Amino acid sequence: MRRLMPVVGVIGGGQLARMMIPAAVALGVEIRVLAEAADSSARLAATAVGDYRDEATVLEFARGCDVITFDHEHVPQPVLQALQAAGAAVRPGPDALLYAQDKLMMRERLSRLGVPQPDWVRAESASEVEGFLADHGGRAVVKTPRGGYDGKGVRVVSSAAEVADWLEGGAVLVEELVSFRRELAQLIARRPSGESRPWPLVETVQKGGVCAEVIAPAAHASDAVERAAAEIATSVANGLDVTGVLAVELFESSDGRVLVNELAMRPHNSGHVTIDGSVTSQFEQHLRAVLDWPLGDTSARAPWSVMINVFGELPQPAIMAALGHQPAVKVHAYGKGPRAGRKAGHVTATGDELDETVYRARAAAAHFD
Amino acid sequence: MRRLMPVVGVIGGGQLARMMIPAAVALGVEIRVLAEAADSSARLAATAVGDYRDEATVLEFARGCDVITFDHEHVPQPVLQALQAAGAAVRPGPDALLYAQDKLMMRERLSRLGVPQPDWVRAESASEVEGFLADHGGRAVVKTPRGGYDGKGVRVVSSAAEVADWLEGGAVLVEELVSFRRELAQLIARRPSGESRPWPLVETVQKGGVCAEVIAPAAHASDAVERAAAEIATSVANGLDVTGVLAVELFESSDGRVLVNELAMRPHNSGHVTIDGSVTSQFEQHLRAVLDWPLGDTSARAPWSVMINVFGELPQPAIMAALGHQPAVKVHAYGKGPRAGRKAGHVTATGDELDETVYRARAAAAHFD
Repeated sequence: MRRLMPVVGVIGGGQLARMMIPAAVALGVEIRVLAEAADSSARLAATAVGDYRDEATVLEFARGCDVITFDHEHVPQPVLQALQAAGAAVRPGPDALLYAQDKLMMRERLSRLGVPQPDWVRAESASEVEGFLADHGGRAVVKTPRGGYDGKGVRVVSSAAEVADWLEGGAVLVEELVSFRRELAQLIARRPSGESRPWPLVETVQKGGVCAEVIAPAAHASDAVERAAAEIATSVANGLDVTGVLAVELFESSDGRVLVNELAMRPHNSGHVTIDGSVTSQFEQHLRAVLDWPLGDTSARAPWSVMINVFGELPQPAIMAALGHQPAVKVHAYGKGPRAGRKAGHVTATGDELDETVYRARAAAAHFD
Repeated sequence: MRRLMPVVGVIGGGQLARMMIPAAVALGVEIRVLAEAADSSARLAATAVGDYRDEATVLEFARGCDVITFDHEHVPQPVLQALQAAGAAVRPGPDALLYAQDKLMMRERLSRLGVPQPDWVRAESASEVEGFLADHGGRAVVKTPRGGYDGKGVRVVSSAAEVADWLEGGAVLVEELVSFRRELAQLIARRPSGESRPWPLVETVQKGGVCAEVIAPAAHASDAVERAAAEIATSVANGLDVTGVLAVELFESSDGRVLVNELAMRPHNSGHVTIDGSVTSQFEQHLRAVLDWPLGDTSARAPWSVMINVFGELPQPAIMAALGHQPAVKVHAYGKGPRAGRKAGHVTATGDELDETVYRARAAAAHFD
């Protein structure tokens, strides 16, 4: 059969790949997933099960795909380079992904771009950490440059001894402990030919270093804050030549500055709210962006949208109870087996009043406690 | 692995089965499709390819499914009965589906229910057809009881000779040629435990007997018309014990009556507008209904939603042009190879003003002409 529509290959079979499936089905795009395991969240679209660190596995998977994109940032640079050398359209490309893989390189690169960030330093020794602590009120955030997520690889410390184990492994990133009013996230999508579109700024509420709740748009954000966030995201997307969705996690500091916390170059938890809350979801936009198709309208579909993560599991009786209790709330289950603390799904409410929308989302989510 | 979530088996691999996939992915429900061919529209979820008229094929497919539902009404009654005898939960059940399979039985059943319909008669001979014509101004609609869809099996006639071929095959349905202001469709979903929820009434615009455009809600519908449509759909759903989505195609007659034209017991073209236009789409609601889960809110997400069918094919350059021209319009492609006249996709616009929403939908659809 003549191939009429493009094939997008996604490396990684987690919930982000899973949530690309509905968007691909609607657009008529074929989606193929290289999954870690047969029972991965995105198993419906899995055409291969294997190790994303293995070059041969990844090259074999990519054959027949028009574009390769990602469920996560963990594909090693040599594998990404080999993909590109084999002629694959890798989006985002290895040179961009580097800055989502390595937090030290990200800080260095954003400093050169002139993007506002917390104070930071690269430290290879206890004395360098102590020096930074002395200059910053005796407390700081220390991060391993690679491999951290959802609060892992991050410690708030008041002495270098607390990260002695990490220093044995190499340089660490030491950051100012920002006093902030709240955390924000600015999502933007960018296509290879240059067009980019931001979504409205959202507020993220973290618990234990993990995203718990997202409120879209960020309530009472000043024009200056909204403008700063959009400018930062645009600078980073253009400056780092990001293609697809870029999520910029931000602090709104106590003194009113907007500072970059983290970057992700893929659909992001802070954007799950766009599935039900936006004209174009982050998953549809990511596919359009990596295919170099025109980007969609990112306007909100309702004055307020609130997303709450569900951890552990979503048992069927709880889903039924949540749906019965809140007929307008949307429940999203990621098709994972139960495991304590793991993101297993989310719920989204949309509405005209923030308080009432938050209430409905929490009322639905409470069925999964 | 312990099965955590129910499995819904869909017989038929067309676009209706395809559009259930995103809803199943979101709800965490496993969907399996018995497809007609390897390249069917719903191939992503196909777990079997085979003939839905073959009992052994269907029984084998149904093994391991918690609920069986349908992409079309063409599964023969003996196969449906065998499924039920084997213990499968068939939704809608054979006794309900009968009335979507046989238009004569439908008319007889709705007459007994007291639901308003066009005048009709069962005719086995030319003289019976001529008798009806004589009583109804010399013109009538004749339909074969089975197998018709999208204008096939339907003729507007002024003499019995025009359906002589059909009369050789058995009885035909002869109906009053209704003088109507417009055609409407009332969708409703009903679950086995009895709960039902209608969507707002929509207007359907047919071209050549095929749905071309849907406007939601039906503009300027009187309260009486809206109430009549909802009452008819509720009577039919309850009276025929329909489970899942029921679509009731209606005439709004020139003298203001609401009359049943056709029934479909599955998601329906007139409900595609609910994907982008409603809090709960007909595909999500169909899954919830056949699973006997609580039904979702059927409210509109915008004052107006307009859906336009695309026939033939949706070439990638045309999709890109449509998306580029209308960033807020949603394009849905059914993953079919090109074939003249066949439903290949649809576009949906939502908005605050009807005129402007129609304009944007048509502007996007025009890229596929």
